[in-house]
Amino acid sequence: VIAPHDVTALVNTGDDTELHGLWISPDIDTVIYTLAGAIDPDRGWGLQGESWNAMETLRRYGATTPPGSSAGTTWFNLGDRDLATHLYRTGRRDEGASLSEITDEIARAWGVEVRVVPMTDDRVETRVTVVGEGEISFQEYFVQRRHEVPVEALRFEGAESAVPNLGPVCDADLVVIAPSNPLVSIGPIRHLSGVDAWLSRRRSSVVAISPIVGGAALKGPADRMMRELGLEPSVVGVAELYAPIASTLVIDHADSALRKAVEATGMKCVVTDTIMATPQRAAALARVACATSERD
Amino acid sequence: VIAPHDVTALVNTGDDTELHGLWISPDIDTVIYTLAGAIDPDRGWGLQGESWNAMETLRRYGATTPPGSSAGTTWFNLGDRDLATHLYRTGRRDEGASLSEITDEIARAWGVEVRVVPMTDDRVETRVTVVGEGEISFQEYFVQRRHEVPVEALRFEGAESAVPNLGPVCDADLVVIAPSNPLVSIGPIRHLSGVDAWLSRRRSSVVAISPIVGGAALKGPADRMMRELGLEPSVVGVAELYAPIASTLVIDHADSALRKAVEATGMKCVVTDTIMATPQRAAALARVACATSERD
Repeated sequence: VIAPHDVTALVNTGDDTELHGLWISPDIDTVIYTLAGAIDPDRGWGLQGESWNAMETLRRYGATTPPGSSAGTTWFNLGDRDLATHLYRTGRRDEGASLSEITDEIARAWGVEVRVVPMTDDRVETRVTVVGEGEISFQEYFVQRRHEVPVEALRFEGAESAVPNLGPVCDADLVVIAPSNPLVSIGPIRHLSGVDAWLSRRRSSVVAISPIVGGAALKGPADRMMRELGLEPSVVGVAELYAPIASTLVIDHADSALRKAVEATGMKCVVTDTIMATPQRAAALARVACATSERD
Repeated sequence: VIAPHDVTALVNTGDDTELHGLWISPDIDTVIYTLAGAIDPDRGWGLQGESWNAMETLRRYGATTPPGSSAGTTWFNLGDRDLATHLYRTGRRDEGASLSEITDEIARAWGVEVRVVPMTDDRVETRVTVVGEGEISFQEYFVQRRHEVPVEALRFEGAESAVPNLGPVCDADLVVIAPSNPLVSIGPIRHLSGVDAWLSRRRSSVVAISPIVGGAALKGPADRMMRELGLEPSVVGVAELYAPIASTLVIDHADSALRKAVEATGMKCVVTDTIMATPQRAAALARVACATSERD
């Protein structure tokens, strides 16, 4: 719908984690692997045709690790091929390269023409307060607890002082907020200093796509998390979150009855098929998002 | 020949390297994998039944790495299973564990009962000066240049201030200097402060096994390296190196004609089969080494 070199993806890095000495950027890798057509379509993360021999052997060490150590941890599963990406990222970091440069190099190695930009080159950590347990890292919540535990607060450590990478996107004709988790995928980007202010200034050319369809997240814990944090787990709750920064919310046919309620938040509302089950349906959704902007 | 829990291996760490953010201790891993019966018998390093998917994918990054970067380097080949050992070591280091503790844990994970001890917990780096090229790291010499380039000097960076791990071996009844490269495998241990002095004080119960058989190293560049550094690449050259710290040199039948020349260095000389082609021949050699000591 748009030529790849005309698209820039600004990607959350609040999920980044350091494990076994390696620097892991799960969201960036998922975006790059997806755009490269290399992602495992069933898991939705990691590479296709993956092998798991490193993790299998690490389990041997995990069985005899001293108490309190997490060095033998295998709940954060890393495929053998995927490990190469983390080895490369960590090696380049040790050479002094920024995450922006490294991300660019990784994308290029996979032949990805979309420009993939980390939300910041500084360290921001999404921290999740779990009811009855206290604050844990995002990956402990998302992977280790399989996002099954109730959340009472989110915090983005380092977000106040981190510099957002707005340079590559500030002249964009259109900003599309993807149907990601508004709290832990879009949220960390919005918590960076100046991002919400920038979006609100150009609100008329910002369009968001609702990740909630028929009252549920298509994937992940967005609906539960919204409810736990006092938000309505519906397109209306999404509209309330995005109204200050986006002029339009694209919702699914399943939610057409809520159109007026979305509009009551001050957003325009476009109803279409938002479930990107095939490339064709994804393209149609992109066309709607772009046309929405042109109508402004 | 000796119960495993009565044997301690003090192992060279001058070959250690940091690559892709991971801490790699090749000699320690080779000793542990060998004692565990898990080493690849054909390569002589790494694990049997290994896969190479991480390196294969890293090659993709290597092809587009910016000039001057070594992050995509794949000449130091790391198997997928073997990577788990480096992930574990690095993770434990980041938690503050010492190399002694980590080595102990890795050995235990493989069911190894021989106590494996790094020569020091401090960082020592074997540096190799190559004719016409200058100083490079040991792995650059050994793996990247396949030890095919002529050497004019060796240096053990950090050896003066590193504390040798003599605690676990200082009450040993017998010290056997294995038929390793006397310059770059035994050499780094000897360069640690106090090691040669300790050995020379207990010289009568130190026995060395010659790595040179019939004027050549069974494996690796020991013979060439000795010649390049002005030493005779023979059991006599080995005797000259070890005479100050060991009372006995075990040589192969192939070198029996040099027995008198070895004895002229001040060492006793025992002639036997030193080629450990089978466990039985290795056991017979161990019995000779032990009996030698008892004769003193």
